[in-house]
Amino acid sequence: MSGRIASDYDVREHADSNDQLAYVHKVGKPPKQDLLKEIKTGLKETFLSDDPLKAFKDQPTGKKLTLGLQAIFPILSWGQDYTLSKFKGDLIAGCTIASLCIPQDIGYAKLANLDAQFGLYSSFVPPLIYAFMGSSRDIAIGPVAVVSMLLGTMLQKEIDPKNKHAYERLAFTATFFAGLTQFALGFFRLGFLIDFLSHAAIVGFMGGAAVTIALQQLKGLLGIKDFTKKTDIVSVMRSVINSAHHGWNYQTILIGVSFLIFLMVAKFIGKKNKKFFWVPAIAPLISVIVATFCVFITHAERDGVQIVRHIKQGINPASASEIHFSGPFLAKGMKIGIVAGLIALTEAVAIGRTFAGMKDYQIDGNKEMIALGSMNIVGSMTSCYVATGSFSRSAVNYMAGCNTAVSNIVMSMIVLLTLFVITPLFKYTPNAILASIIISAVIGLIDFDAVVLLWKIDKFDFVACMGAFFGVVFVSVEIGLLIAVAISFAKILLQVTRPRTAVLGKIPKTSVYRNVEQYPGATRVPGVLIVRVDSAIYFSNSNYVKERILRWLSDEEETFKDHPKIEYLIVDMSPVTDIDTSGIHAVEELYSSLQKRNVQLILTNPGQTVLDKLHASHCAELIGEDKIFLTVADAVLTFAPKMQQA
Amino acid sequence: MSGRIASDYDVREHADSNDQLAYVHKVGKPPKQDLLKEIKTGLKETFLSDDPLKAFKDQPTGKKLTLGLQAIFPILSWGQDYTLSKFKGDLIAGCTIASLCIPQDIGYAKLANLDAQFGLYSSFVPPLIYAFMGSSRDIAIGPVAVVSMLLGTMLQKEIDPKNKHAYERLAFTATFFAGLTQFALGFFRLGFLIDFLSHAAIVGFMGGAAVTIALQQLKGLLGIKDFTKKTDIVSVMRSVINSAHHGWNYQTILIGVSFLIFLMVAKFIGKKNKKFFWVPAIAPLISVIVATFCVFITHAERDGVQIVRHIKQGINPASASEIHFSGPFLAKGMKIGIVAGLIALTEAVAIGRTFAGMKDYQIDGNKEMIALGSMNIVGSMTSCYVATGSFSRSAVNYMAGCNTAVSNIVMSMIVLLTLFVITPLFKYTPNAILASIIISAVIGLIDFDAVVLLWKIDKFDFVACMGAFFGVVFVSVEIGLLIAVAISFAKILLQVTRPRTAVLGKIPKTSVYRNVEQYPGATRVPGVLIVRVDSAIYFSNSNYVKERILRWLSDEEETFKDHPKIEYLIVDMSPVTDIDTSGIHAVEELYSSLQKRNVQLILTNPGQTVLDKLHASHCAELIGEDKIFLTVADAVLTFAPKMQQA
Repeated sequence: MSGRIASDYDVREHADSNDQLAYVHKVGKPPKQDLLKEIKTGLKETFLSDDPLKAFKDQPTGKKLTLGLQAIFPILSWGQDYTLSKFKGDLIAGCTIASLCIPQDIGYAKLANLDAQFGLYSSFVPPLIYAFMGSSRDIAIGPVAVVSMLLGTMLQKEIDPKNKHAYERLAFTATFFAGLTQFALGFFRLGFLIDFLSHAAIVGFMGGAAVTIALQQLKGLLGIKDFTKKTDIVSVMRSVINSAHHGWNYQTILIGVSFLIFLMVAKFIGKKNKKFFWVPAIAPLISVIVATFCVFITHAERDGVQIVRHIKQGINPASASEIHFSGPFLAKGMKIGIVAGLIALTEAVAIGRTFAGMKDYQIDGNKEMIALGSMNIVGSMTSCYVATGSFSRSAVNYMAGCNTAVSNIVMSMIVLLTLFVITPLFKYTPNAILASIIISAVIGLIDFDAVVLLWKIDKFDFVACMGAFFGVVFVSVEIGLLIAVAISFAKILLQVTRPRTAVLGKIPKTSVYRNVEQYPGATRVPGVLIVRVDSAIYFSNSNYVKERILRWLSDEEETFKDHPKIEYLIVDMSPVTDIDTSGIHAVEELYSSLQKRNVQLILTNPGQTVLDKLHASHCAELIGEDKIFLTVADAVLTFAPKMQQA
Repeated sequence: MSGRIASDYDVREHADSNDQLAYVHKVGKPPKQDLLKEIKTGLKETFLSDDPLKAFKDQPTGKKLTLGLQAIFPILSWGQDYTLSKFKGDLIAGCTIASLCIPQDIGYAKLANLDAQFGLYSSFVPPLIYAFMGSSRDIAIGPVAVVSMLLGTMLQKEIDPKNKHAYERLAFTATFFAGLTQFALGFFRLGFLIDFLSHAAIVGFMGGAAVTIALQQLKGLLGIKDFTKKTDIVSVMRSVINSAHHGWNYQTILIGVSFLIFLMVAKFIGKKNKKFFWVPAIAPLISVIVATFCVFITHAERDGVQIVRHIKQGINPASASEIHFSGPFLAKGMKIGIVAGLIALTEAVAIGRTFAGMKDYQIDGNKEMIALGSMNIVGSMTSCYVATGSFSRSAVNYMAGCNTAVSNIVMSMIVLLTLFVITPLFKYTPNAILASIIISAVIGLIDFDAVVLLWKIDKFDFVACMGAFFGVVFVSVEIGLLIAVAISFAKILLQVTRPRTAVLGKIPKTSVYRNVEQYPGATRVPGVLIVRVDSAIYFSNSNYVKERILRWLSDEEETFKDHPKIEYLIVDMSPVTDIDTSGIHAVEELYSSLQKRNVQLILTNPGQTVLDKLHASHCAELIGEDKIFLTVADAVLTFAPKMQQA
């Protein structure tokens, strides 16, 4: 960063009215900038802002190789200090999240319109890969509700889920491309792109998705057979009401609602007292066991209570040959994969950052994306669908005292055991219990406090949040997502098109100039208008900035008619960090407009880049180099020394 | 703009080491902001930044009506002061541009794959409408090369131009929607949207389009019959070379090249001496007359010299019923219309602004769009295709001494006469002469000086320009346009994702703190790190800003190991004009990271909005209200008074 060659400034003395020495600093012409260094710095700041190669500097080749391997597989680094006491924590945490994930996996697989075993598959391979490559110590990997639902709705638009084999092939294709997208973003260090989905939009999208998922569960909870495939609230409620007379199954409702109450109470206990965090964590598994046992004894399935019936036993089959690498489904799978991959990434990175912040360790976003991408690519070849970090399970993992990603390995092993041994026992598990588990899980995604905070802090963020929420709830997941992205972008574009400008005044007894609206005590300097431009001047705002400054001038002349005529217009460029050719043109146009009105244009405190460009374009010569000052106070002192006393 | 309620600030005295009084200004808690006013100001600044209703304020109803009519038809306003002496100027200018536009119109219509008369039609109705509604005094309206070519390539992708009637119908449909787009942008005051196409991208796009158009003219100039429909340089050159042995017609080449030389010489004369601006202006018409006469006498058309053959005589026929308002061509026409309308708009607005700047009068961009939109909507119903401001003809108009839009009316009348009387005379006009006229016209669109300036001032702008240029030349007009828009957006996004940050130091003998890289004489304050963030903190950069500040801290501690430990981190927020919820979270995370390192976080000079949000989110309480200062100097004075002496 020390590449810029700085300009000299000369110090001249002025006899100030207060009889103390005041200095006017002139901003001289800077030497030619070093283009290559400029570009290098820019690229570095964009793509390598975290300086990932720092550790490799000045190391022997052998050491570099070790460091390189450790960079790809962080387990090689932290594994060296791994102790038995750490394992104790990880073992307990791993068991806890396994008990939580097994019933969730079965439910989430249904959200994605896949057979139950695919949920379990996705909790076996991906966590294992992540444990070796990931850098978060607290994240719990596996299928999550929102991604499962997103995948389910997008896939069923292309292929009927009843056409099982073709549907699964497209699911694996989408998973492969989701992984590839994640990997590519990390590999090409484009991780910053996911920052473009604003926090507010995500809060709204997640809340909307949670409501949609919960509504979908009414099918299982009420035992409805003919249920709409649409996800919007209107279609779903119509489906529910239309089936009220003949389609509801009361045994199912009894099981579903009573266990939902049990789960909610467990959740409440866990929330009230952090010591009992394990209560909501194991409640789902207990519910499944109890409910399955009840159905098994009473044979309620004969009265129309829908049950899981069959989960395929055994380890993940290979599925690399199932992925479409050509044909019409390639493009479809790719599109779905990119969307699902990005959403999954956003969720995982947010979780990683949150917990890293809580334990105060660093997470390398780009490396994390490579890990998540690799795990999904491998997953797509071993019959898994898109896995990512689950917020609820990660929180349980953290509270159960996990120390490293080994807890994911423990969980993965328990899931493996389940696949081998216990799956036949799930035969009599009622679908209603899975619906209650999903509902109680997704309710946690609705973040009321965050919404209240958004309203309090930033109304625009609140609008973005609500837009995404209502888009998901009333139209569809994709439309909600689109609204979220569109509003996020609109905000950025608005920021760069209509930057703020402010008229400055002198704060009494200082040489500090500040916004007269924020500090009403600040006094205007008669005959001088001081305007600050609060943004880089680029093509997108150069015309606006020029016209706005001229409007300030007209307004000022109109408002203060009795004041002396304005002779000097000082543009404070402190916040103007950059300017492009359009901006330079705007400054030139401003200059000639002011010339015609007999007003002198004065610039203060332009940054290095701006100064360079002013000189390169000879705009500085046009304005006059003696019209460029270091501070507003210096400029006022030079051109309106009498006013300075005021 | 005076809506904000300002915060109070209290002034406390400090005994400075220099035995003079220094004041520390505290930034107090601001009163609750007025939400409604805030939103109103924001909306007004975005959509009504030019305050269009100002003139209507406090006027009686009758006057308001007059003003309203005058706002829609500016001719009612300037027409009152119209004098004979003004008309003299307009008459000469009108005749000059008419002589230039007639041959150009015939050529441009061919670019759009339309019959010659449609070019003339478009120089009759639209200029007439514009004269009543437009506010530019210098623009010359009619078909232009780039839009004609754009329209031609996009239309022929949908319908074969040989299918004349269907092709014309789609052209009128596209023209209608081009007009509607322009009208809507103006009416809904979304004119600022066209600012998103950066000047640099336009320079590149125009240059590329000029090269493409010139290459296309090789067909006419060399008399080639089998010519590729693609526009990229590779296909065109292959076509030219493949036809070298049998397809070139040497009489055609003789006519084309000799008149091209004549036109270029005329252009050169006009450029050398501004007095002879009329030489290049009438040269095309003279060429047409001479060439037509030669062909008529020698009957060169029998030797394979292609001629215009037929231009339909008479005034524009009505075409409102030809426009597709339903059916499959509606969407296609709409898409083409929107693209062509936006490009036409960009060109017209740029021309309007340029000449308004030269004569120092104001142009209302949104009103201008309404005028352009109306003229194209009416045009689409009277057999015209998309018309806009022509740069070359506007320049001639300006130099010929036009005073008002009446010169457009004069031109329009001459075109009308041409349509009624002279069209049969164009029968023997060789196509080669039209090709030479087009080539000599579009060469002016290649702006070498602008490209050199782009390279000098801003390398990124240069890349955008070259990207658009090569996109158009090597691929297609649409791809070039897409590249131009994409690069423009990428620049904006980069700006908001990776804002600059700078470490500040104290400029000796002042209380001013500036970037230590720009001013190497600035001294660091031991034990204090001062960082300035040069952008609003939004979701798109909040993480980066937080991590960058922490990296400055680590770097500083590493570089200056012998210095005292850094105890205070001052973040100068002067350029931070806004912050959103993600930004607030980032500040909170920064605070807790610093707490863990035993570093105090201090903020200086947050703007009104930022201060409001810091308080609304209780982030100000977290940091401590006594840690927020008006200036960096105040903060240093309070926490490190001894260092201040340095």
